[in-house]
Amino acid sequence: MAEKKIGKQTVTFDTCPYIIGSAAVVGKKEGEGPLRDSFDMILEDDMFGEKTWEKAESKMLKEAMLAALQKSGKEKKDIDLVLSGDLLNQLMSSSFMARDLHLPFLGLYGACSTMTESLLLGAMLTDGGFAHNIIVGASSHFCTAERQFRMPVEHGNQRPPSAQWTATAAGAMVVSEKMADLSQVGALDGKKAAEPVSLKNIKVDCGTIGKIIDAGVKDANQMGSAMAPAAVDTILNHLEDTGRKLDYYDLVLTGDLGYIGKDIAADLLKDAGLDPAAVNQRYDDCGTMLFYREEQDVHGGGSGCGCSASVFSGNILRRMRCGEFSRVLLISTGAMLSTISPFQGESIPGIAHAVSLATC
Amino acid sequence: MAEKKIGKQTVTFDTCPYIIGSAAVVGKKEGEGPLRDSFDMILEDDMFGEKTWEKAESKMLKEAMLAALQKSGKEKKDIDLVLSGDLLNQLMSSSFMARDLHLPFLGLYGACSTMTESLLLGAMLTDGGFAHNIIVGASSHFCTAERQFRMPVEHGNQRPPSAQWTATAAGAMVVSEKMADLSQVGALDGKKAAEPVSLKNIKVDCGTIGKIIDAGVKDANQMGSAMAPAAVDTILNHLEDTGRKLDYYDLVLTGDLGYIGKDIAADLLKDAGLDPAAVNQRYDDCGTMLFYREEQDVHGGGSGCGCSASVFSGNILRRMRCGEFSRVLLISTGAMLSTISPFQGESIPGIAHAVSLATC
Repeated sequence: MAEKKIGKQTVTFDTCPYIIGSAAVVGKKEGEGPLRDSFDMILEDDMFGEKTWEKAESKMLKEAMLAALQKSGKEKKDIDLVLSGDLLNQLMSSSFMARDLHLPFLGLYGACSTMTESLLLGAMLTDGGFAHNIIVGASSHFCTAERQFRMPVEHGNQRPPSAQWTATAAGAMVVSEKMADLSQVGALDGKKAAEPVSLKNIKVDCGTIGKIIDAGVKDANQMGSAMAPAAVDTILNHLEDTGRKLDYYDLVLTGDLGYIGKDIAADLLKDAGLDPAAVNQRYDDCGTMLFYREEQDVHGGGSGCGCSASVFSGNILRRMRCGEFSRVLLISTGAMLSTISPFQGESIPGIAHAVSLATC
Repeated sequence: MAEKKIGKQTVTFDTCPYIIGSAAVVGKKEGEGPLRDSFDMILEDDMFGEKTWEKAESKMLKEAMLAALQKSGKEKKDIDLVLSGDLLNQLMSSSFMARDLHLPFLGLYGACSTMTESLLLGAMLTDGGFAHNIIVGASSHFCTAERQFRMPVEHGNQRPPSAQWTATAAGAMVVSEKMADLSQVGALDGKKAAEPVSLKNIKVDCGTIGKIIDAGVKDANQMGSAMAPAAVDTILNHLEDTGRKLDYYDLVLTGDLGYIGKDIAADLLKDAGLDPAAVNQRYDDCGTMLFYREEQDVHGGGSGCGCSASVFSGNILRRMRCGEFSRVLLISTGAMLSTISPFQGESIPGIAHAVSLATC
């Protein structure tokens, strides 16, 4: 057994894994946002031809996984395992997706941190020698989340300005022990290239597993505030474990803290002694990137497992492949409250897992 | 990257991991059943001094983890990761347990298959070199499950004879890269032994990750029938991948199929060509072991994540340590329906993961 841990919460990878394919499927509203050109599929109707929102979300997750698989140049028979989760009770989207794909499956729940939970586990299991290729993913849907966590959508209740907008989105990646053959598969569009293209391979370099951090926030409309301390705790532990500084990364990207949470996280990072200029230049949040803030009326910004999943799988990985970013740290953030824990007087436990990626 | 897979769904482990500590905490009714002498703690009252059932379940899971830790001879600082799940929406029991333990945490959901999901992931991450020691566990509580999945307990609704009884129970194990020092810690009772004791070490040998199998069952009071095909699929794939026969194992133990599901699984195993005598002699189900069938009025038998978690962590591992069983295959079984999927016309997807254990 090789010793791969380099710090209390951080694991490193020797020679693999690589992200050889990725895809994002998003809803209509997300497809009208600033990242609309990044996505593989934009739904015309968030029902996606299904009879229920839950089935639409499950189908969206499946389509993202199949698109990532197609772009990876692999076939279903090459996939050893699917790792996935979503916000729905009993992982309804993931369970029914996994039924349709009919591949070995492990269900995960980390609320909106699920994308990095699945990516980090996929990286460990690939590097550990337990799989050649793993599909990882996560999804959320505005209407399924509203129905489950808040009010029936039909009720049309007024949302406070701090409330975030659950993204209707799914992201998926194929994590592999071997580099992508970029001469064979374009990786950006899934088409075979006539000539080798000048795209970069992307390696998962290391990752940091988060602890539950509970800042005592009890307002379920203040998710960014509740999750920001967990994100900061994971980032600081990651930097300490690896001996890196924030400016080691071209981009440090939290999952879905939104506008309020992003400001809090930036302040906390600066308070912890990180270089303010580096924080201002290199830190961003997926929840602030997915929508136009004013025009799309999303209040606190985007949220949901699908937010960081689609922004990362759709936009950021594409920009890494094209050479815009060489080193990226993604920290998806989850609020681990339940539908009944607030009624039992509980505050909101936050969690965040970080994955470090580098082009090669 | 070492090649460790030996078949499409099965992963094997080279030199580790070992189960160096385990514990089970159960409710009052479970503590009156045939396995009552196996458990580390039996609650006098299933509220466990808390104001809600959910908090009682979370506390029960935490106590099982702390007891397993204490019996392992390790301290909290030696633990790199906690892997756990439960039946509650948003993993309420596990999330709040992890908040209290304040250790790196990954939440899992596999319905009642969660015990083997966490054990198998814990084994892979330890063998892969990503952790020295991991606590894995799962829990369920009759009253939290009834409230969430069925009727309010106060309603006193009549349960059909096929319905299973969700166990109020939690089980936890410490998975380690190194063998237990049985001369230092009794492992059975957590007390230091004056002399080396003649207990066995227990190694996780290999495991098989299940696929979702949906047999089309739509009756949520027929969980055993819904899950039995998934259990059988995983067992057959495990035997095919490893080249073993059923009688390689002293005990093949499904999670919580209960009386009806166990009979179906036994029939399906025989129909698949396995030796009927071996099936009759070596195959059993945790859901049929936890309660007295008639006297305790549990209808279809025990179920819930805590059923296989407590039977295995409490009873079976103890019997392995004492030399009664040398090789055991545990297959926890999950019904991946959601609280709303039946209302949307969906059948019940089943899943089962197998873990092979051997004394050494």
